[in-house]
Amino acid sequence: MKIAIAAETRSGERRVALVPGLVSRLTGAGFEVAVEPGAGAAAHHTDDDYRAAGAEVTEDAAQDAAALLGVAPPTDKQVDALAAHAVVVSFLPATQELALVARLRDANLSAFAMELVPRTSRAQSMDALSSQALVSGYRCALVAAERLPRFFPLLMTAAGTVAPAKVLVLGAGVAGLQATATARRLGAVVKAYDVRAAAAEEVRSVGAEFVELDLPPLEGAGGYAREMTEERAARQLELLAPYVAEADALITTAAVPGRTAPMLVTSEMVAAMRAGSVVVDLAAEQGGNVEGAVAGEEVTIGGARVWGGRNVPSQMPAQASQLYASNVVNLLLHLASDGKLAPDLDDDIVSGSCVTHEGEVHHAPTRALLS
Amino acid sequence: MKIAIAAETRSGERRVALVPGLVSRLTGAGFEVAVEPGAGAAAHHTDDDYRAAGAEVTEDAAQDAAALLGVAPPTDKQVDALAAHAVVVSFLPATQELALVARLRDANLSAFAMELVPRTSRAQSMDALSSQALVSGYRCALVAAERLPRFFPLLMTAAGTVAPAKVLVLGAGVAGLQATATARRLGAVVKAYDVRAAAAEEVRSVGAEFVELDLPPLEGAGGYAREMTEERAARQLELLAPYVAEADALITTAAVPGRTAPMLVTSEMVAAMRAGSVVVDLAAEQGGNVEGAVAGEEVTIGGARVWGGRNVPSQMPAQASQLYASNVVNLLLHLASDGKLAPDLDDDIVSGSCVTHEGEVHHAPTRALLS
Repeated sequence: MKIAIAAETRSGERRVALVPGLVSRLTGAGFEVAVEPGAGAAAHHTDDDYRAAGAEVTEDAAQDAAALLGVAPPTDKQVDALAAHAVVVSFLPATQELALVARLRDANLSAFAMELVPRTSRAQSMDALSSQALVSGYRCALVAAERLPRFFPLLMTAAGTVAPAKVLVLGAGVAGLQATATARRLGAVVKAYDVRAAAAEEVRSVGAEFVELDLPPLEGAGGYAREMTEERAARQLELLAPYVAEADALITTAAVPGRTAPMLVTSEMVAAMRAGSVVVDLAAEQGGNVEGAVAGEEVTIGGARVWGGRNVPSQMPAQASQLYASNVVNLLLHLASDGKLAPDLDDDIVSGSCVTHEGEVHHAPTRALLS
Repeated sequence: MKIAIAAETRSGERRVALVPGLVSRLTGAGFEVAVEPGAGAAAHHTDDDYRAAGAEVTEDAAQDAAALLGVAPPTDKQVDALAAHAVVVSFLPATQELALVARLRDANLSAFAMELVPRTSRAQSMDALSSQALVSGYRCALVAAERLPRFFPLLMTAAGTVAPAKVLVLGAGVAGLQATATARRLGAVVKAYDVRAAAAEEVRSVGAEFVELDLPPLEGAGGYAREMTEERAARQLELLAPYVAEADALITTAAVPGRTAPMLVTSEMVAAMRAGSVVVDLAAEQGGNVEGAVAGEEVTIGGARVWGGRNVPSQMPAQASQLYASNVVNLLLHLASDGKLAPDLDDDIVSGSCVTHEGEVHHAPTRALLS
């Protein structure tokens, strides 16, 4: 059975769903691997690297493949090339891509969305949202450090002692914790805030101070924060203002996939930061945690440089692809038995991540939108 | 007596010779401080910041001042505004700026070059080459980390363990050691090389491995390496090649002020690095340690991004200015006694850094070139 690897076509997408180093995990399980030409180029893997790893490189990779692996959802052309019952694994924002979901359903394909993999211990190795957030969080800290006109660490020099930079991280999920840990590695003094009180221990475990606001805690679901009332959000803004004002670098990572990100910092709060401060808003693509941040651009607010993230994992394509490919391979092999792909919808990981199967839309919220 | 602070006019120069936080060290010693308008703007210090610190802000700052402090050498206009016997402190590449040195001599000014401050323990607090190299070295490591498409640290993730990045640093002076230490902080595995065998202990003290090549050691003078024969340089290239090939990031910092930097890495060696590798050449302005590197630009050689440094301290203007200003103030106060500037040419720091004094060129190599 043939597994096809898509060459990504979406602008700015530099990742690839399988890296050469993982081809053997699929061939070892009895599959053939066919890669669309140039699929790995932006992630620094040549067609020859794939060939050397035992894959075929061909324009017709998707034709009659048993599975298609991608980062972005498949194109119409790829969907049409696949035979009925073939498996598609990619990121797939199902509730927002209704036309594509209908096409996958009508082609009788089994489509799995990486963002729907349950956040359970058993599914950890397939959790692409976490692996990509790890990349994003690390990169956010480096972007902040590279743009700040002063050192992160305390340095004792002959010309005097330089105090460490103060970094504030808002949102302490996987990305926020990795940003916190990376800023700490570089020697900054880091404070981190999350609406989930449970995040306090994790923040402290990476050497940062947890910011406790005088607000009742909100607990999350599936590792993400719940939304809050307008009144509570306004009070939170007010209580965060002094923390933002004293920070040299502000990194915001508060986002729930598929929803608009909460606005945590007003442009007025940014303007109150010292001249030369840096703001990195990882949630800019989802509306932004910082008022005025623009995804994929750097803007100036007051004396601060405000960097808005856009497909941040693609900015470290080799690393992001390696981790993503590992997640995808783990999910694909979880769907397989005896060298064949046989999704077992009684399994919670399979069922949780399934969007279409056997001519039906399996994902209930998407089904509701399509009916 | 009035001390004037120059607004820098050279393109790309974002530093300032005095920061507001150090104004009180001069006023406390009995001087008045006058700042040219906008002098601190690029380093994030406003005219109001200087006023609040007790300085005057005026276009006529240099007029009849007892001293002028700058980063770049003074302009003709500034030289003309100063009264005879006034002191000028700035970077001043004397042997390359003969016309300016003659003008300073003929105006009967006492000019001191920060790069000529002796590298002795007693002069450490005035050593601007070291303080600026500290900034450059830190920044080099961040530039490399920000551009590398993979993590610096080892990470244990649910999708597998990510091996740490391999960083090679060539030149282990102040900049190279700081680049090494910063890359180590970020978790990379770092190897560093220097022609001076004495650097081995320093490299090891920041947690990196010292690269020992099968070459007789060269000892330096004043903390810098001596030049070597062509044959030895060729053998060194050959021995370094495998280290360069295995590195994910290469940072080169081998330079002696005022001389052409040694070419340590050919473009062929860079082309042999893995796709996605990053090269940072801090010596690009002095001819470069890496063949093909261009100061102030990023070029591609083979599959590597090659970043050439250009006035790197100015890329972290707040920090670089803070340290530089501290060096300059320490030197200026060393020239003063009883609230007056009275350079004592019998003092080795004063004599070593003096370029012109009482109508003579004091710096022997420059005097030889001018006669």
